[in-house]
Amino acid sequence: MSKSYLDLINECDKFPYPQDDPAYYQQCIAKYHKFKISGCNAVLGYIPNKVVTKFPWPQECWSIDKAAQIVTLVTPPDATTATRSELLAHSLSIARKADVFDILRGWRDELYPIYGPGKELLASIERSGSALFGVVTYGVHMTAYVKDAKHGLQIWVPRRSRTKQTWPGMLDNTVAGGTSTGEVPFECLVREAMEEASLPEDVVRRHAKTVGCLTYVYVRDARAGGETGLLQPECEYIYDLELNPTVIPKPCDTEVEDFRLWTLDDVKVAMAKGEFKPNCAIVLIDFFVRHGIITPENEKDYLEIQARMHRRLELPTK
Amino acid sequence: MSKSYLDLINECDKFPYPQDDPAYYQQCIAKYHKFKISGCNAVLGYIPNKVVTKFPWPQECWSIDKAAQIVTLVTPPDATTATRSELLAHSLSIARKADVFDILRGWRDELYPIYGPGKELLASIERSGSALFGVVTYGVHMTAYVKDAKHGLQIWVPRRSRTKQTWPGMLDNTVAGGTSTGEVPFECLVREAMEEASLPEDVVRRHAKTVGCLTYVYVRDARAGGETGLLQPECEYIYDLELNPTVIPKPCDTEVEDFRLWTLDDVKVAMAKGEFKPNCAIVLIDFFVRHGIITPENEKDYLEIQARMHRRLELPTK
Repeated sequence: MSKSYLDLINECDKFPYPQDDPAYYQQCIAKYHKFKISGCNAVLGYIPNKVVTKFPWPQECWSIDKAAQIVTLVTPPDATTATRSELLAHSLSIARKADVFDILRGWRDELYPIYGPGKELLASIERSGSALFGVVTYGVHMTAYVKDAKHGLQIWVPRRSRTKQTWPGMLDNTVAGGTSTGEVPFECLVREAMEEASLPEDVVRRHAKTVGCLTYVYVRDARAGGETGLLQPECEYIYDLELNPTVIPKPCDTEVEDFRLWTLDDVKVAMAKGEFKPNCAIVLIDFFVRHGIITPENEKDYLEIQARMHRRLELPTK
Repeated sequence: MSKSYLDLINECDKFPYPQDDPAYYQQCIAKYHKFKISGCNAVLGYIPNKVVTKFPWPQECWSIDKAAQIVTLVTPPDATTATRSELLAHSLSIARKADVFDILRGWRDELYPIYGPGKELLASIERSGSALFGVVTYGVHMTAYVKDAKHGLQIWVPRRSRTKQTWPGMLDNTVAGGTSTGEVPFECLVREAMEEASLPEDVVRRHAKTVGCLTYVYVRDARAGGETGLLQPECEYIYDLELNPTVIPKPCDTEVEDFRLWTLDDVKVAMAKGEFKPNCAIVLIDFFVRHGIITPENEKDYLEIQARMHRRLELPTK
């Protein structure tokens, strides 16, 4: 079964929209508790009911309203970002020790930001725990490509290591990685480009182009590793890098098996076969739209694709 | 008062979102009747209550449900696209003869498409009447620019004729125009580029790049001419054209006063002063995002801007 571009979008922007079918949306959202932090009225994430039940919530800092389906981190009135982050870290490390959640076995010792409605940094949370709380996460994705008269535009495509916990063996974007608390997206890109693809810092700094961001609400399935049904609202900052044919990306850590230069036709076939990690497929769809490869004339779902890749998240964001 | 990019987005994507403040949204949407066509369950547009009251609806083909706030074009079960279009044309020409609406004084003799939920062409409607019904309309916008070592990137900016009925004297995109029923976006662009900017067909065909589409819900104010409060959900197909410095856009019809080559700084200043027509300002914002001029590092509303320019319209679209 060949996947259309809209099929690929549906696999990434997976959580339903309230307007499309209010009854179905209600049925889906009823499977989650809202995540809040005391002192802030906004919903900051969504925790699956089954996670709420299993989590060993330390009573001193959590309040659970089962009727309203709200889980609140209760903090002192004078709490700071640091206080809130410590309470989250404390709670997650208890859950980790109790080995309650598979996803925490991939503990990263890396902090992700949680923003409030005024874009203020409310707290940081251990990366591997962020999906349990369904908070918005941020990352960078770059497509490196080469243009020549013979092959036209070709894209550098890495294959993920077959031993990786998440999405083993699937195709990926040339460079991709998560943005930690305090990290500027472009600096994150420069770091990841070296760590994952051995791309020289000066090449990335001089030639990588900032071209937008994509937003969507993913729902984790088995291929992502760990618990399924976790909500992952994501924002990916997007970059293009036209490379000189002499610059060759190479694996640097163990995350990537190899890099190959693919023709557009080969990339399209692999996308249609579902060989790309879902959020990497939509980065390529955005690349195709911006480079005039997908056009209003050749793609029947042009409008829907564009809107769905730029979903307005109903949670505070950066 | 200098306008931020988000201010400019707010002036274009003006209709509120249900999620932001459900009570306020209800208050706003209550000022409209839904527009439907019999045989199709979807809402196709929104008609202001004051338009519903003033319109001389021919009784034989309209049913108005005041309680549910629905206006339905009643057509025979075997109605075709042509039948429905004729009924709309007939009704609008009655309103035009009665001179009930200012906006119909700008009658264009140009048909805009109305699509159903399966992307089927349900009917066509006279362009000047489309905003009365609040149906989705489609257009093309192109930014032509020149790059040189001395000035960097410069943009060709036209000023609208000061005698034009809509948005007189405001700044515009290099080329912009509406897409009629049956017209392919790229062919519309080629035609408008010649008509509005005297750009040679072969230059546009060879060098114009399809780079995406923008969607938003505008609410007409006095500057747009005609009735105020009309809802205009729009989709603009976007094109970039890098021009050789020897190719000079020139006015061809009476719509444009002149074209000038503006530096980025001058364009930014004019945007901040609100000198661009609102939907042209957002086309430039999208251009700035795709060309790395607006970045996650220099723009605090980066995510919101991107999502709002790609609004998922809650009406059937092409």
